[in-house]
Amino acid sequence: MADQDSRPIGVFDSGIGGLTVLKELALQFPHESFLYVGDTARLPYGSKSPQTIRKYSEQIIQFLEKQNVKAIVIACNTASSQVPEREIDGLPIYNVIEPGSQRALELSSGKRIGVLATRATVNSQAYTHKIHALDPQAQVFDQACPLFVPLAEEGWDADPVTNLIVFRYLSPLLQNHIDTLILGCTHYPILKNSIARVTGSSIELVDSGEAIAQWLSRDFKSGRLGPNKSGEPRRIDIMTTDSSAHFTEMAQRILKPAKADQYAVVDV
Amino acid sequence: MADQDSRPIGVFDSGIGGLTVLKELALQFPHESFLYVGDTARLPYGSKSPQTIRKYSEQIIQFLEKQNVKAIVIACNTASSQVPEREIDGLPIYNVIEPGSQRALELSSGKRIGVLATRATVNSQAYTHKIHALDPQAQVFDQACPLFVPLAEEGWDADPVTNLIVFRYLSPLLQNHIDTLILGCTHYPILKNSIARVTGSSIELVDSGEAIAQWLSRDFKSGRLGPNKSGEPRRIDIMTTDSSAHFTEMAQRILKPAKADQYAVVDV
Repeated sequence: MADQDSRPIGVFDSGIGGLTVLKELALQFPHESFLYVGDTARLPYGSKSPQTIRKYSEQIIQFLEKQNVKAIVIACNTASSQVPEREIDGLPIYNVIEPGSQRALELSSGKRIGVLATRATVNSQAYTHKIHALDPQAQVFDQACPLFVPLAEEGWDADPVTNLIVFRYLSPLLQNHIDTLILGCTHYPILKNSIARVTGSSIELVDSGEAIAQWLSRDFKSGRLGPNKSGEPRRIDIMTTDSSAHFTEMAQRILKPAKADQYAVVDV
Repeated sequence: MADQDSRPIGVFDSGIGGLTVLKELALQFPHESFLYVGDTARLPYGSKSPQTIRKYSEQIIQFLEKQNVKAIVIACNTASSQVPEREIDGLPIYNVIEPGSQRALELSSGKRIGVLATRATVNSQAYTHKIHALDPQAQVFDQACPLFVPLAEEGWDADPVTNLIVFRYLSPLLQNHIDTLILGCTHYPILKNSIARVTGSSIELVDSGEAIAQWLSRDFKSGRLGPNKSGEPRRIDIMTTDSSAHFTEMAQRILKPAKADQYAVVDV
């Protein structure tokens, strides 16, 4: 494909969670521009039905297509569990399920893989199906964690209450002797310190941002994606479907050391 | 107004919280029919902006008008903080802010009133303004509790983790020596046992369901609302904007001993 492509990469999530992915991509690809959409007027997706999640996701994909992006990253595990990876007229749409599954299998010594996710992602069994498609021998143990998103949004990321809730959710997985743990919601890396405290150093943690960055890197190398060689400084634009001072404050914290050029509110 | 009116009373909330109000109304008015709408496809409202909350609320009010209800109860404090009480062509629309404020002032001995609510309700200052309008001498201390809704939705209503979080949120109010506490979100009565354990018996708790039931009772007596004297058994219909087995399960638990005749999914 194109030798050079200065168009931005579109990234979306229901809210702030996808910013953990944006941060990773912004750091790994310092010349690429990004256009982020957080569907904050309708968040969270994790408790909604498959039909509703698909409807909202397709609306945002259409919105990003109109913004002339060169690729779309679904930086939300719940949406990724409902929207397949595909290509629309040469525009690649990536989700985070396959990259995360593959990375977990690479890291896992005993193929006992835990998945922490929203209720919707757990119900979809998207990780279990994908991991089994890649390695039928692997064992998958999943756990819905409905309190993690609000804990991350509240900013209680280094807090005894959070440690206690993490311990509660992780106990069944630890009893199943997992050796690798997928943080199957893009909010969860915000709580990584609390999670790592409970898992200890013998369990590998997989986060969606690192996993998808590896995939994009491969597609830049293969030429599926053209790099930005315009010489202009790259831009990071963040759009939300609802206005909120709290969002901007949290976004700045999560993105550090990366920085957004603009925050705007849009209708999708 | 009408001596007899067999039409249902419309009640709405963003999700399951308003069911604590529906339960109270169903028990206090055993001959009245109710039509409940839970906007589960777009919940929660508590973290959204005033414009978005107003837009969603007005859509549901229009939907309920078309269903030919005889009154509408906004059983959501966040929506109540943005949508005024009013009458549309003889159809009364009640919110829960004034009933709760008045009830708190009736119960309060020292006029030191605490308010627990969502971030949006706290930002609106709706309770503070209403209480001061009714009694300029009263002192109001508010606290946003973003984790209460997910704790209630998770069903952790008698749990040490919940007690700990309740204690965290309530501490500043207790230090201010409140004598009365408004549960300013219709989800919070689900956590009433944990809250009462922290407040002890010397602090009066005000919940929206009891407060609005008192108001409707007054309007039935004055003739503003006509009672159902059709002789037919009353109906309770529950509609949500998204489908969820978890909702139905939680709804049955919250409504007990009242019972819904039907659960359905609608577009508003």
